[in-house]
Amino acid sequence: ARPRVGYFYSGKKSNQAVVDSMTNMKVKDFQSIPVVISENVSVYDAICQMFLEDVGTLFVVDPNSYLTGVLSRKDLLRTSIGSQDLNHIPVHIIMTRMPNIAYCFKSDGLIQAAHKLIERQIDALPVVVQHPDGLEVVGRLTKTNITRAFLSLAENHDL
Amino acid sequence: ARPRVGYFYSGKKSNQAVVDSMTNMKVKDFQSIPVVISENVSVYDAICQMFLEDVGTLFVVDPNSYLTGVLSRKDLLRTSIGSQDLNHIPVHIIMTRMPNIAYCFKSDGLIQAAHKLIERQIDALPVVVQHPDGLEVVGRLTKTNITRAFLSLAENHDL
Repeated sequence: ARPRVGYFYSGKKSNQAVVDSMTNMKVKDFQSIPVVISENVSVYDAICQMFLEDVGTLFVVDPNSYLTGVLSRKDLLRTSIGSQDLNHIPVHIIMTRMPNIAYCFKSDGLIQAAHKLIERQIDALPVVVQHPDGLEVVGRLTKTNITRAFLSLAENHDL
Repeated sequence: ARPRVGYFYSGKKSNQAVVDSMTNMKVKDFQSIPVVISENVSVYDAICQMFLEDVGTLFVVDPNSYLTGVLSRKDLLRTSIGSQDLNHIPVHIIMTRMPNIAYCFKSDGLIQAAHKLIERQIDALPVVVQHPDGLEVVGRLTKTNITRAFLSLAENHDL
């Protein structure tokens, strides 16, 4: 008879596996696609972009595509009730700027990234690649990603 | 010599403890305080309340304090760019209404609540007590709470 390759029964994973899973979880395994806009986009267009892409955080980049700012739903809501001229305010006026932006790398542990989200009281971190003259945005790590990671721990271990 | 009470070295907890921790996590162990408003509050005042209390979701209640609606930052942002008269729109016009509101109970498992947040694509669940004629809001469970739970798993097990 032919050997049954490509299939085997592993059964319920061990408890050791739960601990290993948590320590081995990396940002790159759970990150989402980032949505970036340029600095001169109006606040109005940024809000539209946020709804079109259905994200809670936008990243702002310069002409070289390097990270210069972050815009949250909270930032945009604050501006939208405070002024009547959203079409004429560019996002660089209201965004959180470097060097006040918390970010992470693909290879960072998910635990470390979750710590940053809680400490800085933010909903998302840009996932970046460091270049000599700036940070390239390659991903987005949110509390939704952490919630999915929490569930994947439970699912992988039949909890 | 006096016995050294009140202190002992437990060492690193076992892996079984990680699994037990996850299955034993309840909504009541991680929930936050809810912020509620009444149905006739204006959208403008609701946004101010959201900033004052620094929350991402408000719960709307009727005169008996029973849950009738939910307002997210996203709902308020959508309304704030779509109309100029936020002082004259009451929140009951734009809120998500019962029976379309996802909710949970204090005794629910955190895994189950996290599933609801992901499935319904929302940031927060009201924690409620069921009464014969309605749901009393007693808490708020958010993706921030789940992120804290994820971190507490790591901290409790020295990861």
